[in-house]
Amino acid sequence: MADFGNKDFLACCGSSKFAQEMTMAGPFSNYSQAVTAARDIWFNKVDVNGWLEAFAAHPQIGESSAQKNKSPTSAQWSKGEQSTALATATDSSLKELFDWNVRYREKFGFIFIICASGRSTPEILTEIKRRYPNRPIVEFEIAAQEQMKITELRLAKLFSVEADAATRAKPDK
Amino acid sequence: MADFGNKDFLACCGSSKFAQEMTMAGPFSNYSQAVTAARDIWFNKVDVNGWLEAFAAHPQIGESSAQKNKSPTSAQWSKGEQSTALATATDSSLKELFDWNVRYREKFGFIFIICASGRSTPEILTEIKRRYPNRPIVEFEIAAQEQMKITELRLAKLFSVEADAATRAKPDK
Repeated sequence: MADFGNKDFLACCGSSKFAQEMTMAGPFSNYSQAVTAARDIWFNKVDVNGWLEAFAAHPQIGESSAQKNKSPTSAQWSKGEQSTALATATDSSLKELFDWNVRYREKFGFIFIICASGRSTPEILTEIKRRYPNRPIVEFEIAAQEQMKITELRLAKLFSVEADAATRAKPDK
Repeated sequence: MADFGNKDFLACCGSSKFAQEMTMAGPFSNYSQAVTAARDIWFNKVDVNGWLEAFAAHPQIGESSAQKNKSPTSAQWSKGEQSTALATATDSSLKELFDWNVRYREKFGFIFIICASGRSTPEILTEIKRRYPNRPIVEFEIAAQEQMKITELRLAKLFSVEADAATRAKPDK
């Protein structure tokens, strides 16, 4: 039984309402149970202000650090999630991504959210250009779905760290 | 040719981006042209923060004055739009509406937006109860559609005031 707290869930998703509700809904016996609860909370209980709060907790894609990021765990995970992007980036593609991020934020009022794990910089550039013409409300919901993917990957990390610790604590196994 | 400014459009819809874009898109030769521009601006150009800004400019339904309301014209129109509701309200139905407004705002993070023109208090109560179970993102879009209906009614008032003034200015007609 994994007993995580507010801080752990806030590292998975930067909405304070999400973290509070997850803490209340827990403890969860496994990852799958936590994801089911997380989806329900994110899509049915966290309001639009909470979505914006979660988006604002991310560093801009292509940038290595989020000054606003209040969770050191989240900052570390974010770096890992963007490792493929950074490995495939050139100076010019990073510059292009930066410019598109500015355009995107001007149109939509929040940063470009994408589950970057395993995605190259060219792939991310294709995505931001494809999503840019969307209506603001459509893009808002897509960003929320991407945030949920990020949250699921991070919950998996939380539970695998927990599983590792449990294994280490039982050397007779 | 009706030459309205920022202040006029802000009285129709409390999003500053909406008012700016309408001012730039004008002057409009008639009401119909203004509505076409308004729909495009509201649904395609105003971002989710602008939607929240517009919602926040309304008084809560069932309340006569909006302290936050920065537009005296908007406040006056709002009173007119709620006249049917107020005429059909009892102390107990107003209390019930007040309680539902609180519940609604707690769940969604913005006030209940409804195009109240011609609607009785029992009808409005039915609507708030019907919409309350919605997912936050679904309700956000419904509220934006209601805001557009309110904006259209107010644009009609703006243009009819303009038409009246033009008629008065030409007594030979």
